[in-house]
Amino acid sequence: MRFEDTNWMGVEAYLKKDDRVMLVLGACEQHGYLSLLTDAKIPKKLAEAASEASGVLLAPPLNFGCSPYFLSYPGTISLRLHTYLDLVEDILRSLYGAGFRKVLILNGHGGNTPVRDHLVELANELPDLMMRWYAWWTRPIVTQISQEHDLINQHANWEEAFDFTIVSEMPKETKPVPKSGDYIHGKDAIRKIYGDGMYGGAYQADPAIMQEIFDGCLAEILERLKFE
Amino acid sequence: MRFEDTNWMGVEAYLKKDDRVMLVLGACEQHGYLSLLTDAKIPKKLAEAASEASGVLLAPPLNFGCSPYFLSYPGTISLRLHTYLDLVEDILRSLYGAGFRKVLILNGHGGNTPVRDHLVELANELPDLMMRWYAWWTRPIVTQISQEHDLINQHANWEEAFDFTIVSEMPKETKPVPKSGDYIHGKDAIRKIYGDGMYGGAYQADPAIMQEIFDGCLAEILERLKFE
Amino acid sequence: MRFEDTNWMGVEAYLKKDDRVMLVLGACEQHGYLSLLTDAKIPKKLAEAASEASGVLLAPPLNFGCSPYFLSYPGTISLRLHTYLDLVEDILRSLYGAGFRKVLILNGHGGNTPVRDHLVELANELPDLMMRWYAWWTRPIVTQISQEHDLINQHANWEEAFDFTIVSEMPKETKPVPKSGDYIHGKDAIRKIYGDGMYGGAYQADPAIMQEIFDGCLAEILERLKFE
Amino acid sequence: MRFEDTNWMGVEAYLKKDDRVMLVLGACEQHGYLSLLTDAKIPKKLAEAASEASGVLLAPPLNFGCSPYFLSYPGTISLRLHTYLDLVEDILRSLYGAGFRKVLILNGHGGNTPVRDHLVELANELPDLMMRWYAWWTRPIVTQISQEHDLINQHANWEEAFDFTIVSEMPKETKPVPKSGDYIHGKDAIRKIYGDGMYGGAYQADPAIMQEIFDGCLAEILERLKFE
Amino acid sequence: MRFEDTNWMGVEAYLKKDDRVMLVLGACEQHGYLSLLTDAKIPKKLAEAASEASGVLLAPPLNFGCSPYFLSYPGTISLRLHTYLDLVEDILRSLYGAGFRKVLILNGHGGNTPVRDHLVELANELPDLMMRWYAWWTRPIVTQISQEHDLINQHANWEEAFDFTIVSEMPKETKPVPKSGDYIHGKDAIRKIYGDGMYGGAYQADPAIMQEIFDGCLAEILERLKFE
Amino acid sequence: MRFEDTNWMGVEAYLKKDDRVMLVLGACEQHGYLSLLTDAKIPKKLAEAASEASGVLLAPPLNFGCSPYFLSYPGTISLRLHTYLDLVEDILRSLYGAGFRKVLILNGHGGNTPVRDHLVELANELPDLMMRWYAWWTRPIVTQISQEHDLINQHANWEEAFDFTIVSEMPKETKPVPKSGDYIHGKDAIRKIYGDGMYGGAYQADPAIMQEIFDGCLAEILERLKFE
Repeated sequence: MRFEDTNWMGVEAYLKKDDRVMLVLGACEQHGYLSLLTDAKIPKKLAEAASEASGVLLAPPLNFGCSPYFLSYPGTISLRLHTYLDLVEDILRSLYGAGFRKVLILNGHGGNTPVRDHLVELANELPDLMMRWYAWWTRPIVTQISQEHDLINQHANWEEAFDFTIVSEMPKETKPVPKSGDYIHGKDAIRKIYGDGMYGGAYQADPAIMQEIFDGCLAEILERLKFE
Repeated sequence: MRFEDTNWMGVEAYLKKDDRVMLVLGACEQHGYLSLLTDAKIPKKLAEAASEASGVLLAPPLNFGCSPYFLSYPGTISLRLHTYLDLVEDILRSLYGAGFRKVLILNGHGGNTPVRDHLVELANELPDLMMRWYAWWTRPIVTQISQEHDLINQHANWEEAFDFTIVSEMPKETKPVPKSGDYIHGKDAIRKIYGDGMYGGAYQADPAIMQEIFDGCLAEILERLKFE
Repeated sequence: MRFEDTNWMGVEAYLKKDDRVMLVLGACEQHGYLSLLTDAKIPKKLAEAASEASGVLLAPPLNFGCSPYFLSYPGTISLRLHTYLDLVEDILRSLYGAGFRKVLILNGHGGNTPVRDHLVELANELPDLMMRWYAWWTRPIVTQISQEHDLINQHANWEEAFDFTIVSEMPKETKPVPKSGDYIHGKDAIRKIYGDGMYGGAYQADPAIMQEIFDGCLAEILERLKFE
Repeated sequence: MRFEDTNWMGVEAYLKKDDRVMLVLGACEQHGYLSLLTDAKIPKKLAEAASEASGVLLAPPLNFGCSPYFLSYPGTISLRLHTYLDLVEDILRSLYGAGFRKVLILNGHGGNTPVRDHLVELANELPDLMMRWYAWWTRPIVTQISQEHDLINQHANWEEAFDFTIVSEMPKETKPVPKSGDYIHGKDAIRKIYGDGMYGGAYQADPAIMQEIFDGCLAEILERLKFE
Repeated sequence: MRFEDTNWMGVEAYLKKDDRVMLVLGACEQHGYLSLLTDAKIPKKLAEAASEASGVLLAPPLNFGCSPYFLSYPGTISLRLHTYLDLVEDILRSLYGAGFRKVLILNGHGGNTPVRDHLVELANELPDLMMRWYAWWTRPIVTQISQEHDLINQHANWEEAFDFTIVSEMPKETKPVPKSGDYIHGKDAIRKIYGDGMYGGAYQADPAIMQEIFDGCLAEILERLKFE
Repeated sequence: MRFEDTNWMGVEAYLKKDDRVMLVLGACEQHGYLSLLTDAKIPKKLAEAASEASGVLLAPPLNFGCSPYFLSYPGTISLRLHTYLDLVEDILRSLYGAGFRKVLILNGHGGNTPVRDHLVELANELPDLMMRWYAWWTRPIVTQISQEHDLINQHANWEEAFDFTIVSEMPKETKPVPKSGDYIHGKDAIRKIYGDGMYGGAYQADPAIMQEIFDGCLAEILERLKFE
């Protein structure tokens, strides 16, 4: 059940028998040929499937994240990190205030990762709030499936090219991985290095592989929702 | 066209011929019997219709706003006002940085209104950024249609009960308007005063009236999108 | 009694028998031909009269508010909204810490209104702090008196032209109301639209009307000071 | 001329021939038997006299400052230091934006001193803004006059007991200086140590001495207003 | 050369021929049996060696970082993430203001990593500032050396047990890696899970291995200092 | 004992019998011919000697402070005052959280003084935290020794020229004290006024005088560490 499909009475009734909730942290940023909302769409799809399978409530998705390095690609909307830390904290405090005690955070974007550290400060303050963090693309299962198919995992490549994130014709060729070094690049340097915004490898993969990844992650999410 | 349905190349192409964009400011808060996302859904529906009719790009909706007074109703997620001011500012700076110069902000929630004042500070800094503010429920046209049908406009009553915001059986009776006074009430006082969260009047109105309101607002939005 | 006319022993003695206090939120901004401190002077005069009549303590006036849109008129001093929210919160926390529990806030300036929303967050934290908000120019009684005399209410027009806010010769003519649209204008646009800074209507009205308004508001303030 | 006695046209005319302005930083805090606004009243009186003698414009007084150590004395209103830094910065930015380039800051309260350091950051950003800081009670001339009359200078003692700051009967005796050590005391410790809030010495002095101090400081202020 | 061994004239002279500088980001936190300053000491030692070999200036070490999860271990000093972001930004702005354009940041602590994302915002603002980030323990060379010796890399285990970080007798046994799951643990949970604060594996390794790691990292740092 | 020479078990054992700790607040800023870290080195040396003599624990030194006025001297690293207030607060909260209740703050830099006022806010919140503030160069004993030797006390002159802060040849002559007035100078004005960065008087004094000062301050620190 999604927040948008219910009212406060629905949540109040739910909280009498359950205190779990899922929260999707997305982003609106360049993803090469893929949708600007790719990083929101993937965890949202997973969360909706997990909600249906488990009955766990799903909070509304946060469509904005931190992508300062992509600001030279039009369509990227990036929050300052300071803003983002406060924002996610506020959402979690509201959920806690309502009575939720077990939150599975489904993060879809690498640039959002610093908030995980900030939430430790919240955990110190609210020791009875259980928070789990799930970033699907960092999972061993994803790497494993990729390697089985001789594919590499990179931003905006096949790995994120689900049928619901593809919004245009996809290139057929494979792109070499650009060299970035260990510089802290600003937006213009990044666009110069990455060109179309894809970070290398194949642009698209067999739908069966995508399904395999989706199903693998969904299974892991359902496992985590047990909060054991 | 919505951001989520395109990629950065799509936005770059668009910006070569147009610099308008719409931004929906919503909220996730109690709306009596209606969806917790009512304040996001209504301006989003209007914006999607306006985008289709005009071709103006639509940024992703912000699903969270400021509703500290409703925090005793489970399902309400409220950002601190400080956080919210920064958040909306960041979104607008990103849009400006990409090249957008005319932004129509479609606000769906009264508690978000303070950010309008904050955006004047941004306007001082970026004098070539045109920002318009449209809050559908405050429009004379809405009051006029309501009065023609002997209806009053209140939070979470018939006025917001569109087919896409109704998520449960709606009460048939009419509710008297609770007395609130001019106190700055905290969350518990508010719940005590407003009970089911609806602020008085009828819970639902004839679908034809809803359509009339929707169409009236849509026409006004399309007019404003001309930025004349 | 005003804070400035007493010492801490005076306040301590007062708090043993009463816990009410008034706080004036003013502004220093262009008011056309009127005093730059118009928005502080009017609520201050009302508060002083109310204090005399009721014996309720009056805190020192806050002479600064939020007027970013008027910064192209010299003499306007405007605080960032972030600063203002913290400032008013700090004042209220100090009053609360001293033992005051009933605060009547007399706001004199529209640009300060966002802090009302911020104070809900404070109300959530301090549920035994009663705060009331009174903005004299928004009161039905003011509109009613105006309409009885065929006058319209606008920034810096006759409505605010009390003998204690007039600092120069006043124009005799009537000014048409400039068209502003629903743009979020920056300071330069505002000055271009509003010229002398008055928003339309008559510059001055009969002193008897001014007295009527003053007395009407004073009566309402005294009523509110009962905190019933 | 004071801001409150003029309108924006008055300031605009003034700025065509002068770019000097005075700003009073006060406080609302316990001053023993003296007015809670003592620290605003003294620099304000001095500034008004200086304005009359020199024609330099006087901005509205800031009635609130930083006095966390006095919060156990009712009537003290203290801003967090963070808030205060932003507040004074905002005022100065507005003055600068209007065209003022020479600001004489008349500080009346020791607890406000940290903002002086913060203003160096502003000076780095706005190198053509000249700011001078005058804290009357720290002046050698005041110490000298005191010593000539065998008086010591302490918070809320005779030194601040002007006819316009006295609000009650004053004790006749002399108070020994309490021992405070170099601890960073909180509010309760401070009240325990200082009792009636006066820091030692005589409660009142001969009016002629007070006049001598007032005149001496006024002369220094007028000298500083030359900005040579 | 270290900042502490020179004066401003020394830096001014240096800047005429070079614009490189190293900055050590450390932490003061529990490291099991090792020094509380382990995360500052290791990058500092590396930086001092690199400075000697290359002549590149070394700024003073920042001894404090973000370790909210270790606050139940006495001796841990942790900054809020918000504070830390501002702090590192301020240091870099000062270095930039002085004329440095190539900064190699030597981070010694995983909890500091979020600031790397924040620095992208700085890079957007100062495009001619080159910043590189080096976190020695994340380097492939370290993993490789470890694997060659059948050792695993964990917080506070042998990997950080250099002669200059060891402050007490070290346990001889090997510790199993505790299970943490993907929870965002607060400080008490962390202490319960990790006991003595070491994260598993051997407590100490052969000094030759330590030297091999030190030398490998030093070589990489010297390579990076070329800023090619 | 210094934090860096022990581990968390060492601190835990210490806290069972003692709750005192020293904290050094330094700065990295121009000191004329002296080390850029002069303001950290002097209190650190004193603290280390005091720790040895008394057994009181010594936290790691904070090498950065607030010196916005010296930013035109390369090598100066200055934190914004806002940042610094938070930073020192965070350190003290961590120490308090660990169980320390008596903190002697050894400040080495005048520009850090505003944080003393901020710590009063912390003292209000944590009334059982005793904090003492010691700024060696402001002590009567230092003035007295100086006067006995006909020396004046100024930034970066002989007074701070200890053998451990001298990093280059020292001028032999005496420098007249530059006139600064009571302006709030920005960085460029300051460099213009102070030239080599020394504020006047002799550049160096007899080592015996330096030892006398060091010993005098050390004795005072040891006295304060009794927290009587």
